[in-house]
Amino acid sequence: MFKLIPSAAITSAKGFLAGAVHAGIKGENELDLAILCSEAPGAAAGVLTTNRIKSAPVILSQRHLSKRQAQAIVVNSGCANACVGEQGLIDASEMAKLTAAKLNISPEDVLVASTGVIGMPLPMNQVKTGIEKIRLLHGGHDFARAIMTTDTKPKEIAARVDEGGVKFTIAGVAKGAGMIHPNLATLLCFIATDALVNTEFLQSVLQKAVGISLNMVSVDGDTSPSDCAFLLANGLAGNEMISFDNGETFQEALNEVCVYLAKSIARGGEGATKLIEITVEGATKHAEARQAARTIASSPLVKAAIHGNDPNWGRIVAALGRSGAEIREDKLDVYLDNICVMKQGYPMPFNKEEMRAVLSNNDSVLIRVCINLGDNKATAWGCDLSEEYVRINSEYTT
Amino acid sequence: MFKLIPSAAITSAKGFLAGAVHAGIKGENELDLAILCSEAPGAAAGVLTTNRIKSAPVILSQRHLSKRQAQAIVVNSGCANACVGEQGLIDASEMAKLTAAKLNISPEDVLVASTGVIGMPLPMNQVKTGIEKIRLLHGGHDFARAIMTTDTKPKEIAARVDEGGVKFTIAGVAKGAGMIHPNLATLLCFIATDALVNTEFLQSVLQKAVGISLNMVSVDGDTSPSDCAFLLANGLAGNEMISFDNGETFQEALNEVCVYLAKSIARGGEGATKLIEITVEGATKHAEARQAARTIASSPLVKAAIHGNDPNWGRIVAALGRSGAEIREDKLDVYLDNICVMKQGYPMPFNKEEMRAVLSNNDSVLIRVCINLGDNKATAWGCDLSEEYVRINSEYTT
Repeated sequence: MFKLIPSAAITSAKGFLAGAVHAGIKGENELDLAILCSEAPGAAAGVLTTNRIKSAPVILSQRHLSKRQAQAIVVNSGCANACVGEQGLIDASEMAKLTAAKLNISPEDVLVASTGVIGMPLPMNQVKTGIEKIRLLHGGHDFARAIMTTDTKPKEIAARVDEGGVKFTIAGVAKGAGMIHPNLATLLCFIATDALVNTEFLQSVLQKAVGISLNMVSVDGDTSPSDCAFLLANGLAGNEMISFDNGETFQEALNEVCVYLAKSIARGGEGATKLIEITVEGATKHAEARQAARTIASSPLVKAAIHGNDPNWGRIVAALGRSGAEIREDKLDVYLDNICVMKQGYPMPFNKEEMRAVLSNNDSVLIRVCINLGDNKATAWGCDLSEEYVRINSEYTT
Repeated sequence: MFKLIPSAAITSAKGFLAGAVHAGIKGENELDLAILCSEAPGAAAGVLTTNRIKSAPVILSQRHLSKRQAQAIVVNSGCANACVGEQGLIDASEMAKLTAAKLNISPEDVLVASTGVIGMPLPMNQVKTGIEKIRLLHGGHDFARAIMTTDTKPKEIAARVDEGGVKFTIAGVAKGAGMIHPNLATLLCFIATDALVNTEFLQSVLQKAVGISLNMVSVDGDTSPSDCAFLLANGLAGNEMISFDNGETFQEALNEVCVYLAKSIARGGEGATKLIEITVEGATKHAEARQAARTIASSPLVKAAIHGNDPNWGRIVAALGRSGAEIREDKLDVYLDNICVMKQGYPMPFNKEEMRAVLSNNDSVLIRVCINLGDNKATAWGCDLSEEYVRINSEYTT
């Protein structure tokens, strides 16, 4: 059993401290450098960008994660530290060293993340002074703000698990996809838990949770060299070791944390006014259900239609058709906010004005596609293309 | 030897007639129904949508193309005749029959295409009356207008070949990707030639030409159930049969026609102000060069940067990185309008204001990426995301 705590911070897990400063990387008066650390060493897991261009912090963190342990994360926004040649790794290593020295731990126990402009070297003087200035506290809301770029809101959540006396917390924070200044749709996600968790299991649960959450979010289809999700587990909750044989609740709680953050990222997409949730059911393969849901979530035409409250389901079917999923037109059912618009391949009559009213009253829209050929299901999240983001695509004549 | 004739129409090839009317499918006073026909039967080739949802006209035309011959094409805009159940094929067949009766040919020699809203049945009374009313003439500009949806300009071109006394014409017309009313980014392309061409060769050259032209255009990444390219060859030029052993010039001329139309489609993307041409060189595999060029062409972040005249080459590299092409960061060179911005993985200094001036003075932008690992090269075309299309993504701080 667990419950979500929306007012939580990344430091809601026992023994985690965080702090942030304005170091001057962004050049405005915003928080842009932050540290998360645990009072005790612990297990660490990570999921890193699949982009073949990797930022220096991603490369360094990948190395540090090979030991499956870490005690701190240092992260900056405003500069991605990517595509700057060998200087990138030198600077990322220096960030780890400076953080380690401050915390009196080994540099290898520090994970590093940077998000922002590509091809610009890190201003290391500011980073150095900034790391020195950071005060580590139990209230972690500043950490969530410091990793924001064009996000309008911080994205934080925690799951508090209490199961037969086993009590622990999984706290997560993420930044979403904004592109005005930082020039990349970067996604960062940091999760801290005070549970004692087997390290192999930790990597496995993180991959599973990211697979159904952060990997199912689309804002604009671009991935970045900086994308990463880190999970630290310090074991201070005092629970028995959680591993593959007893880890079901941990996985469920972690899934919920990641799904919550994923939905926050989709809802907070640049200029977005609506969250779109797409569920594809009845696919012959799980991978096809995932791909179909993601393809619909990232279709500019679907996104523009939803913004205009236009029940233009033909676009959903067209996106499904190019997704690669096996389909038969005469088996397809499509629902828009639980109203059936296509049944076994035939258009279903519906009142367009009523449907427009339903869509315009909701700040989240549910698309359900039933392929009716198998048993596999997947859900993806996206956002609409707003009037700001794209005017021309939502000027219909319905 | 051949030259392009920009003022040409689809009827520039000998023995082709065309005509168009306002049948009332679009509901406004625009041309929306057209016929192209040849005075003599001839060979036909076609490339059809890969979307698993196919419009009824696509399915019917695929059948008719199995004979590799056709004498006419009937096409409407305003209604895609897709996702309407069995009625779709009945209506598409009826369109072929009505056209065949008018021309006194076999219905199987008629190809059918429709573009527009999905899930809406064709108004067959209007189609019937419209087909009767169409007057077939040698001037084909109306045909190009009738297949337009939100295209701002018709897209027509012809190549006139004269090689050692062998004279023939390849004329092409296309419609591009508009989405305001027709609700789909449909792409239609019709090519007519008076050359005498071996039918097997005809299909082969069309596939090759489409592969390097129409398949390398991206406006928004959505494909449609209606996409198709048809090529008719009536042999009235009086040339010796062109086939695999003597078809080099035919292929080259057809390539040029298709590339011209592809670039017109990219330039005419909704709200677009600039054509973007992306060339990827030095890939280890040809498929990877293609995929890399297409991925960059369709990246919303690259497109928005180009619109804002922002030399933000990090986005090009990030899109390349997720394209799946094998790359090594320390081998990469990137050029923006022939100015080197990245060399062997290092950012190259350039004057941002000068670069902005260069970009803002051009209505087409050239991106060149040198992977420097192999010998394969590909070019793709796209367009910027304009202020209209997407304001927020192009408000930078450079």
